[in-house]
Amino acid sequence: MIITDGSASVDRRHLLKAAGTGLALLAAAPALARAPLAGSQVAGVYRMKVGTIEVTAVLDGHLDLPQALFPKATDGEAGTLLERAALPRAPQINTPVNTYLVNSGDRLVMIDTGTATAMGPTLGQMPRNLSASGVTPDQIDVVLMTHLHPDHANGLITPDGKPFFPNAEVVVAGSEYDFWNDQGLMNQAPKDVQDFFRMAQAAVKPYAEARRLRRIGPDGEVVPGITTVAAPGHTPGHTGYRISSGDQQLLVWGDIVHIAAFQFAKPDWSLAFDTNQDMAAASRKRMFDMTATDRITVAGMHLPFPGIGHVLREGDGYRFVPVAWRPI
Amino acid sequence: MIITDGSASVDRRHLLKAAGTGLALLAAAPALARAPLAGSQVAGVYRMKVGTIEVTAVLDGHLDLPQALFPKATDGEAGTLLERAALPRAPQINTPVNTYLVNSGDRLVMIDTGTATAMGPTLGQMPRNLSASGVTPDQIDVVLMTHLHPDHANGLITPDGKPFFPNAEVVVAGSEYDFWNDQGLMNQAPKDVQDFFRMAQAAVKPYAEARRLRRIGPDGEVVPGITTVAAPGHTPGHTGYRISSGDQQLLVWGDIVHIAAFQFAKPDWSLAFDTNQDMAAASRKRMFDMTATDRITVAGMHLPFPGIGHVLREGDGYRFVPVAWRPI
Repeated sequence: MIITDGSASVDRRHLLKAAGTGLALLAAAPALARAPLAGSQVAGVYRMKVGTIEVTAVLDGHLDLPQALFPKATDGEAGTLLERAALPRAPQINTPVNTYLVNSGDRLVMIDTGTATAMGPTLGQMPRNLSASGVTPDQIDVVLMTHLHPDHANGLITPDGKPFFPNAEVVVAGSEYDFWNDQGLMNQAPKDVQDFFRMAQAAVKPYAEARRLRRIGPDGEVVPGITTVAAPGHTPGHTGYRISSGDQQLLVWGDIVHIAAFQFAKPDWSLAFDTNQDMAAASRKRMFDMTATDRITVAGMHLPFPGIGHVLREGDGYRFVPVAWRPI
Repeated sequence: MIITDGSASVDRRHLLKAAGTGLALLAAAPALARAPLAGSQVAGVYRMKVGTIEVTAVLDGHLDLPQALFPKATDGEAGTLLERAALPRAPQINTPVNTYLVNSGDRLVMIDTGTATAMGPTLGQMPRNLSASGVTPDQIDVVLMTHLHPDHANGLITPDGKPFFPNAEVVVAGSEYDFWNDQGLMNQAPKDVQDFFRMAQAAVKPYAEARRLRRIGPDGEVVPGITTVAAPGHTPGHTGYRISSGDQQLLVWGDIVHIAAFQFAKPDWSLAFDTNQDMAAASRKRMFDMTATDRITVAGMHLPFPGIGHVLREGDGYRFVPVAWRPI
């Protein structure tokens, strides 16, 4: 496949010759088919294999997070990090909401469910993308919840409060379930936070009433091939799920990162609405260290769609390297 | 949206309480829908807007390039660069073959066409992905060629040598057309390189015979909104295409880069089958400098699919930052 260096001088000769030929030795009238613009992006779906298990990233949409939600971020540092990510210096940073479908061949598992109608028209696209992936909600056996914030749990229910997944068991950390269902705690919270309590309660209620809600502890196997990894701080029972098959693993880590451009370089930058910012930072550092050391592929609900990649050490912090698009 | 720090102590109390609850307070029998594995990746299609123009990346597939094809690469440096890209240290590096569809609303343009059947079953998927993007070959008005290597030009024709795009005009640099159609040069070339000449000649022949082949010079507008950017070296007439609309630009730069993990950091690392390795390195450095300085978004035929992103300076070299998946 090698064109020898001997042809290089010929190239130059041909280039010089070509420079004199000008445009359009042979011209043709274009057909001007006027194909309509597609006008929309393709479906937000991407697949990978973890051993024999098929994992499908299913996009729920995008939201803008204000830089001001990161109390430790200075404008200078944030601007530098945005430039390093080739993003505009802007007070709002766009970030996706991802969900994941896990198919072992005999069990179909969703991890998180997106926002449904709770957060506007740029979100709530999980149902459409799930359909594009070839799966209907009634086929889902189990829904694993990383936590019960509305951008993860609202997709559990239809607008009239019915289960969106009519046959699924919902699995959630007991500590997470207890926190959001604590009426005393809710009554003490600021009014806008009370909405979060109400939404979390509404999302799990029909499943609990149907005795299709399973509370789990911080460690253990929740379905064959999937174990929990406790990562508290963002919320009290925030939980990652480790998918294992053969010698391969994928850690679906929930909300360890909200803005990839910021938090890999600055693991200390917790979010103002983490229930415990210090604990969230400790969980983030533990997850970064573990996945970088053990070279475990990660998937994150707010990493650039499909949200799958590798954590590498860089300087005092880390760097995220998205997986390259690949066939399976 | 902020849960106050006052709740942090409550979190810990709840966490402790939850730790004692164990698994499965409420259990339910899973439905076990046994949904079949999809077994294949989604279509290789991704869209973006450049002003009012819609650009669609259409994947042709993937190939493995041997590290040995980079004469300046040492095993040590190559290994370090692969690790920085979270890729395995391996003698073959996987890279995609991308094509691009450009729709201005009144003209439908393809840039390059993939491999057709010339390079095995991991390639030749442009027709299927073009179809998935909603476009039929007869709708294409113009095909712009970056160069006439078989992974770019073989998609011009069907297996029986007919035009794959029955209504399209093919546009190629005059210097590129002359080089591959020079029988004297072909006869002097090694046997395996002669195959490249034969394939290039066969790909353009039916268009030339139908007087639907347009030779162009190194600079100028080829269709409204698209101008050429000469980038010789990889081949004599290797050409990039600059798409402009309003204040936005996308430079489709062809084969300026073959392995992103190597050549952004090491712009000197030309490919053994560049017709002129020094000239290719000079074109690469000029393109990197221009796109980094002017912050021009680039698209490359061998950048990780969809192959669209930004060039940033880093140390003595550059770094590629892929665009984040976004709606349009």
